[in-house]
Amino acid sequence: MTDRRKPVFLVLGAGAGIGGSAAARFAAGGYHAVLARRSDGEGLARIVRQIEAAGGSASGALLDAAQDGTIEDWVERTERDIGPVRTALYNLGAQIGNRSLDDTPHRRFELGWRLGTYGVFRLAHALFPHMVSRARTGDHGTFLVTSSTAAVRGNAGQHSHAAAMGGRRMLCQTLNAEFAPQGVHVAHVVVDGAVNAPDTLGKLLGDRFEEFKHAKGRDGVIDPAALADTYWHLAHQPRSCWTHEIDVRPFTDVPWWNDNPASQGVGDT
Amino acid sequence: MTDRRKPVFLVLGAGAGIGGSAAARFAAGGYHAVLARRSDGEGLARIVRQIEAAGGSASGALLDAAQDGTIEDWVERTERDIGPVRTALYNLGAQIGNRSLDDTPHRRFELGWRLGTYGVFRLAHALFPHMVSRARTGDHGTFLVTSSTAAVRGNAGQHSHAAAMGGRRMLCQTLNAEFAPQGVHVAHVVVDGAVNAPDTLGKLLGDRFEEFKHAKGRDGVIDPAALADTYWHLAHQPRSCWTHEIDVRPFTDVPWWNDNPASQGVGDT
Amino acid sequence: MTDRRKPVFLVLGAGAGIGGSAAARFAAGGYHAVLARRSDGEGLARIVRQIEAAGGSASGALLDAAQDGTIEDWVERTERDIGPVRTALYNLGAQIGNRSLDDTPHRRFELGWRLGTYGVFRLAHALFPHMVSRARTGDHGTFLVTSSTAAVRGNAGQHSHAAAMGGRRMLCQTLNAEFAPQGVHVAHVVVDGAVNAPDTLGKLLGDRFEEFKHAKGRDGVIDPAALADTYWHLAHQPRSCWTHEIDVRPFTDVPWWNDNPASQGVGDT
Amino acid sequence: MTDRRKPVFLVLGAGAGIGGSAAARFAAGGYHAVLARRSDGEGLARIVRQIEAAGGSASGALLDAAQDGTIEDWVERTERDIGPVRTALYNLGAQIGNRSLDDTPHRRFELGWRLGTYGVFRLAHALFPHMVSRARTGDHGTFLVTSSTAAVRGNAGQHSHAAAMGGRRMLCQTLNAEFAPQGVHVAHVVVDGAVNAPDTLGKLLGDRFEEFKHAKGRDGVIDPAALADTYWHLAHQPRSCWTHEIDVRPFTDVPWWNDNPASQGVGDT
Repeated sequence: MTDRRKPVFLVLGAGAGIGGSAAARFAAGGYHAVLARRSDGEGLARIVRQIEAAGGSASGALLDAAQDGTIEDWVERTERDIGPVRTALYNLGAQIGNRSLDDTPHRRFELGWRLGTYGVFRLAHALFPHMVSRARTGDHGTFLVTSSTAAVRGNAGQHSHAAAMGGRRMLCQTLNAEFAPQGVHVAHVVVDGAVNAPDTLGKLLGDRFEEFKHAKGRDGVIDPAALADTYWHLAHQPRSCWTHEIDVRPFTDVPWWNDNPASQGVGDT
Repeated sequence: MTDRRKPVFLVLGAGAGIGGSAAARFAAGGYHAVLARRSDGEGLARIVRQIEAAGGSASGALLDAAQDGTIEDWVERTERDIGPVRTALYNLGAQIGNRSLDDTPHRRFELGWRLGTYGVFRLAHALFPHMVSRARTGDHGTFLVTSSTAAVRGNAGQHSHAAAMGGRRMLCQTLNAEFAPQGVHVAHVVVDGAVNAPDTLGKLLGDRFEEFKHAKGRDGVIDPAALADTYWHLAHQPRSCWTHEIDVRPFTDVPWWNDNPASQGVGDT
Repeated sequence: MTDRRKPVFLVLGAGAGIGGSAAARFAAGGYHAVLARRSDGEGLARIVRQIEAAGGSASGALLDAAQDGTIEDWVERTERDIGPVRTALYNLGAQIGNRSLDDTPHRRFELGWRLGTYGVFRLAHALFPHMVSRARTGDHGTFLVTSSTAAVRGNAGQHSHAAAMGGRRMLCQTLNAEFAPQGVHVAHVVVDGAVNAPDTLGKLLGDRFEEFKHAKGRDGVIDPAALADTYWHLAHQPRSCWTHEIDVRPFTDVPWWNDNPASQGVGDT
Repeated sequence: MTDRRKPVFLVLGAGAGIGGSAAARFAAGGYHAVLARRSDGEGLARIVRQIEAAGGSASGALLDAAQDGTIEDWVERTERDIGPVRTALYNLGAQIGNRSLDDTPHRRFELGWRLGTYGVFRLAHALFPHMVSRARTGDHGTFLVTSSTAAVRGNAGQHSHAAAMGGRRMLCQTLNAEFAPQGVHVAHVVVDGAVNAPDTLGKLLGDRFEEFKHAKGRDGVIDPAALADTYWHLAHQPRSCWTHEIDVRPFTDVPWWNDNPASQGVGDT
């Protein structure tokens, strides 16, 4: 159900992990949450019902972000039929696991770019004119982008993912450079650890997911609800004090720039 | 006045800017704030009174962080006489304005290191054994470090400051690498913009401070109260989702990695 | 003319700037240079003739790198008909000047990716199996990638270029991670300054090119022959001491991470 | 023996590794090499004799860089008695192996700074006025700084070393920002791998050094003579194309930003 007096929180990539938790957090804070994902309409409906059961307002749609026009239509429909988007979250990943170059087909590399980089460009292209127009009267919009370690370093086996995420990070910087002074807050969030996300990491790992989390220990995997609180904080920073880049990881995880202690023979060079 | 049932927020570098605002924010959230600064006892007392007038709890001390033993004694006294420090903020800067190498005396360069790098080491050295001990029973401490653009790039004229801040940033990473898994949260905050801080930037600029802020426009200078809210958020992230590094700047400021648009002749190389 | 006893230097993006100069340098050092560019067959023939006039060996082909199959065919033809490629240089850029998001059409953004990121992937995909196979017998190949400031930071107006270059940089890291241990040297060269390149910057600036260079002062624009010497050095580092990333700029240029001195009011935050 | 017609190559930290190899390389290229190290006069004399036996020119002195005035006197004596320094190499490290914070005494942390950061400042302070003066007539000087992975990330156990190296890196950037436009080339070299250096790593590892190198495999440890060739290249780049930062590592080493493949469970986040 839509309450047109509420600001809209738009999330692309709304599974039962970061996307769904962020939608729940913003709905709890008074937003109407608009969710989109590629498939599993039943899973999407379940998230919407959970938000409503908690007293929030939400609606959902299935949408293939790799197809031309889909993101654009969705933004226009939302702005016209539901209300002005105050905060948007681009939460699509492009992780396909580790694959050698030889095992990374050209079509897969291109799809990584479509979801990892081009979709961010398309969402900003469709949404920012609305946000800029409203920012002129003091209603500042926020564009949150879930990103990953692969945006800051390219690991072995990550040709498709890292190229897509490296493009994503630079694009967030160019968007910020053009639009922050116009009142649109762009935040690039480097998620540098595994997330307790059944719809993405859970599907990638399958049967090994529970075992994986158990090996990580208590609080050893990012709780998406905790990350959703950080998203909420970012979206409500006053414009004199905006964050563009922030990292998060579990306390037990080795940050991307550190060696695994076990691999250290001698002191660092 | 000290309320021993409250967790302690400790801040070194407590002027009427970031330090004082953070103290006020944590006091408002239920902490007892322990403030220290080098001089101006009257200014310090005024901040304490303001916190108390708002219903909070705070106490202050003068302290020369460049002298051996001072930080160490202060931590021990606080832990013994006031209560366990849950969150500490190292908020001392080392900015002396732009000076050529020839105009940067050896003693000044060393003092920059004492305040910019060594003090962080000394505070962590004195405080972390207490925090680690408490983290074993689930009481996690947070070590917030106010840092600056000079920690990530060295500009002309910044020999003393950038060397000190570069050391600060790497030290925060080594502290995080050793202590995060032991339950102590270390956060390095890159303040990439001017702060509305009368006791530091205000004194550096003197008569030009008001003019400077006016030229920056509305919300063109970081409101330390807004930054204090981000500090509060960082200090209360659940341990499955800790931030180590975050940047902040006013919406109108050019981030450190971008060119000033006015200086762009052709497109980026 | 082709001398099959010579190692092959392959360069994609061979105009009268970095690409042509690198071809000349490697030809002078005993390689047969294989040049490709999109258009201007006469310009290409001129570079080949100059190399031959200097006693070197070279050949050229026109090739649209944005089209599927072209790079792949060219690599196969070269390996089969000319000889084993010991050093390859990916020298295609994707700079289109500064354009606002609104003025960056979707097709242009995609083309930026095709030339800026995807082409690097395609060349590596086609070439590396050959190089890996030869490295097993001690014949190490080198993959040089001309890159730009936009690979490490995204400036205003650079949506297409920076996203493409950010992807390029991360891809070079994933390629290095997989292939360096297999004996293929991948080097990412951050060209952080204007190059005296009539076929790229010259065409972008048109009539203003000479004026631009004059304003930069003597040696204020990168001499592509100097950069070619650095490429030569990189390609001949022994494998115990390989460089993956290096930057270059004219001595008078402000590095990308520094402020233009003129824009500094107060000291760095 | 001193040949006053030769340009001078000055190296601080001249053991039988990078420093000695660089001295030999520059002597072979026509420089007079001036070497300094803290102790082992016999080892120093041996390097000088080897350079002379190869037809080069060199001289040496013992010098405690941690003491005030020593570097300054040495520079003045060299400039006055031997000749103008064209290239200087700061090659002192501050690695003490991995130590927990508790096991890092305050005096050791300070010594790390004296050798890791302050010495670079002192050498530049003493030398750059000479170099700037000569650059006005076209005789450009180069300041090479051997640096390390710890300059770009702080690993566990590296409190002293990383803080010192982080300061070193930022200082090299401030020096470059002020002095490159005045004709002095500052290059910061990130040595991201173990070096075959008997006087430093050899002494740190003791009996385990040969075993360590053997485990690394053929060409698995940086050959200091190879690195010396890169130093030579950097020192002779024309001023239109100067490198400020470059990394080097053995082909088999995992770069600092990559995970050790063995530690990768799932794809990168």
